[in-house]
Amino acid sequence: MKVIVDLCVVPLGVGVSVSSYIATCEKLLKEAGLKTTLHAYGTNIEGDWDTVFAAIKRCHEAVHEQGAPRITTNIKLGTRTDREQTMADKVASVEAKL
Amino acid sequence: MKVIVDLCVVPLGVGVSVSSYIATCEKLLKEAGLKTTLHAYGTNIEGDWDTVFAAIKRCHEAVHEQGAPRITTNIKLGTRTDREQTMADKVASVEAKL
Amino acid sequence: MKVIVDLCVVPLGVGVSVSSYIATCEKLLKEAGLKTTLHAYGTNIEGDWDTVFAAIKRCHEAVHEQGAPRITTNIKLGTRTDREQTMADKVASVEAKL
Amino acid sequence: MKVIVDLCVVPLGVGVSVSSYIATCEKLLKEAGLKTTLHAYGTNIEGDWDTVFAAIKRCHEAVHEQGAPRITTNIKLGTRTDREQTMADKVASVEAKL
Repeated sequence: MKVIVDLCVVPLGVGVSVSSYIATCEKLLKEAGLKTTLHAYGTNIEGDWDTVFAAIKRCHEAVHEQGAPRITTNIKLGTRTDREQTMADKVASVEAKL
Repeated sequence: MKVIVDLCVVPLGVGVSVSSYIATCEKLLKEAGLKTTLHAYGTNIEGDWDTVFAAIKRCHEAVHEQGAPRITTNIKLGTRTDREQTMADKVASVEAKL
Repeated sequence: MKVIVDLCVVPLGVGVSVSSYIATCEKLLKEAGLKTTLHAYGTNIEGDWDTVFAAIKRCHEAVHEQGAPRITTNIKLGTRTDREQTMADKVASVEAKL
Repeated sequence: MKVIVDLCVVPLGVGVSVSSYIATCEKLLKEAGLKTTLHAYGTNIEGDWDTVFAAIKRCHEAVHEQGAPRITTNIKLGTRTDREQTMADKVASVEAKL
């Protein structure tokens, strides 16, 4: 099952600067071979359900290992059976109407 | 790795009444042996990471089979390595301060 | 416009224990006369759009005053024009199908 | 109070194609003078709290007027008192560590 995800990982207990933890996640998502796009409040990810969620689990493990005792993460995820759709398709579909 | 999740599954393309799809998810989460609490905008879930995410995947599969061509889901998830914490602990901790 | 909201306020830069900040928000929501239900990953709120969002703004202001230099909040919000629906209705509608 | 928001509006009861409703929101956000960046699972917005939330309210009103009887929206929002930070700063901060 193909999934499009928006991932926002928030480490707690490490102060207000969290970009080094986000960078760790970005690297892990890339290593998993996933297509990603970073934005100002998360990362868009496109891939197979199992690959995506295995990578998200590794993000939590790695951010804990990097020193964060607590993590709260927000995920939006979309699946559809009516047709194939990529992240680029979704953006293009809105832009075509602007 | 233990996780506390808040799950909100939204089927699209099936009209405005979505409770029968949510009920399907509730049953699947229970069948997976997970502790859950339904609220007005989602379901709190407590359990092992792999068990929880396998159940969420089954929810998507089942809601598609039930007729929804598209699903958008929102998940909040928390993990911590500093101490054990249950869903009940989280609520009690806030209520103790009220 | 009536709105049903799920609010999850996460203060950053104050360590891993955040329940005292959540308690501050709960008090402000109550003071605003809003109907609320606390759960393990947020608070359900029911009320008029302007009243609800004015209260959420006061939550951010108060959590900053209480010492949090940074806050990340997640809000789910629902509006509908087809019929009236309360938080209790939403839960009852799912439970009726279980 | 300055806020950075990630907005994801989901109209229900209008089938599976929702991009025309998202386009309506994009136009309203632009008309409000807000800085926005569209991505595959929402729109990043930067601006003054009151301006941003007034525009989000207009989005709900306009999407209902466009024909959607029900809307569920997800908002992530961040405020900070320790320093100024733009959407571009947030992305640059992560990219500098990659």
